[in-house]
Amino acid sequence: MKNKVYLIGSGPGDPELITVKGFKIIQECDCILYDFLSSVPLLDEVKSSCEKICVGKADGLHLKEQSEINDLLYEKSLEHKIVVRLKGGDPFIFSRGYDEKTFLQEKGVDVEVIPGITSAIAAPESFGIPLTIKNKISSVAIITGRKRDINAPIEAPDCATLIYLMAVANIKNVVKALLKSGRKGDTPCAFIERTTHKDSRIIYATIRTIEEETEKHKIKPPAVLVVGEVVSYGKRD
Amino acid sequence: MKNKVYLIGSGPGDPELITVKGFKIIQECDCILYDFLSSVPLLDEVKSSCEKICVGKADGLHLKEQSEINDLLYEKSLEHKIVVRLKGGDPFIFSRGYDEKTFLQEKGVDVEVIPGITSAIAAPESFGIPLTIKNKISSVAIITGRKRDINAPIEAPDCATLIYLMAVANIKNVVKALLKSGRKGDTPCAFIERTTHKDSRIIYATIRTIEEETEKHKIKPPAVLVVGEVVSYGKRD
Repeated sequence: MKNKVYLIGSGPGDPELITVKGFKIIQECDCILYDFLSSVPLLDEVKSSCEKICVGKADGLHLKEQSEINDLLYEKSLEHKIVVRLKGGDPFIFSRGYDEKTFLQEKGVDVEVIPGITSAIAAPESFGIPLTIKNKISSVAIITGRKRDINAPIEAPDCATLIYLMAVANIKNVVKALLKSGRKGDTPCAFIERTTHKDSRIIYATIRTIEEETEKHKIKPPAVLVVGEVVSYGKRD
Repeated sequence: MKNKVYLIGSGPGDPELITVKGFKIIQECDCILYDFLSSVPLLDEVKSSCEKICVGKADGLHLKEQSEINDLLYEKSLEHKIVVRLKGGDPFIFSRGYDEKTFLQEKGVDVEVIPGITSAIAAPESFGIPLTIKNKISSVAIITGRKRDINAPIEAPDCATLIYLMAVANIKNVVKALLKSGRKGDTPCAFIERTTHKDSRIIYATIRTIEEETEKHKIKPPAVLVVGEVVSYGKRD
């Protein structure tokens, strides 16, 4: 049988929120490449002979270049029957999963993508915040809060619920974009830190106060920003 | 210990795409309420003593009213230690999970929500279509394609990638909304039927041709409509 690389989403944080399919492959794999957003306890599930390779560090300063990760994946796909590339959340949402897959396929490697639960959805849900409300809130956008370059504006699409990933460092510009798009300053928002981890927490604010609250409560990445009326539905928990 | 109700997302279709957490609870539960979008093979995983209750039928004509489901959930929560309400996809995305949770909590019942992978994300992914592209496509909207009432327009938000759920019957109005919002007629789209099931299939089209193609290929619900440049990235598979 041909060697195979699996790009697996580890989910939002809680190791039990990986899929059954992803979990089984992790238990069987011969080599696993993981990064700082992967669910670390899952690494305890691999065989003792499995080669474990960290391709990123938590402080964001010592990440391998994407091209190095691609090359390493290819190299390992030649050495091992089953290679896992474990990624936080879902491999195809603000992740380089597509690049990795394309790179490997162009070299003739068999690749399969196993989806994972994105924190964009699990974060509000874990604090009782719905994403849609029947007959009322019928669109959800997932947006990057990261500024791509100095001239690129942050988006604020016209969906009823907005969920920003990677927005902590750039919260000032996210707020600007929201106000510019016509959202009212008193629109409810919430920042959820360390989604589905035991020490996960939420802070509630409005568009007007979120920047100050983020600073006051020292919210750190990874965190998920939820903007919209749905936030007020979650407070009953 | 107090009785508990778990609202569990069964994921997009493939029974192995449920979370490990959800799977374990299904194996332990004393009663399970499921509907036509739930992943049916998961019902084989319950204990022999488990009470299985179907609350919806595949033709969409014999669904129980939501209030009946709520009442039944409450009734069963008094009878059994562990009750599972199994739902297709994710319980908080275009699902009545929030209503069920709120109803039960107001009656003092312990409720926990276990997220599931939504077909909105798994459908494009399963055919190699990414949802975002670094530095290029940085927002994704998930929208209902269902017309709420005769006067309510279908939304076409200004996100780079649009994913419509429940759009088959209403494809004509979705197309109208897309064109009205300024999308070009040659924008790539794809309909994915029976996401992650063995007989899943995809049809490719453009906004201009999708209505005709849907009819020609007899696309049936549940199906996921993906609109945007990302569709053209997926064709390499």
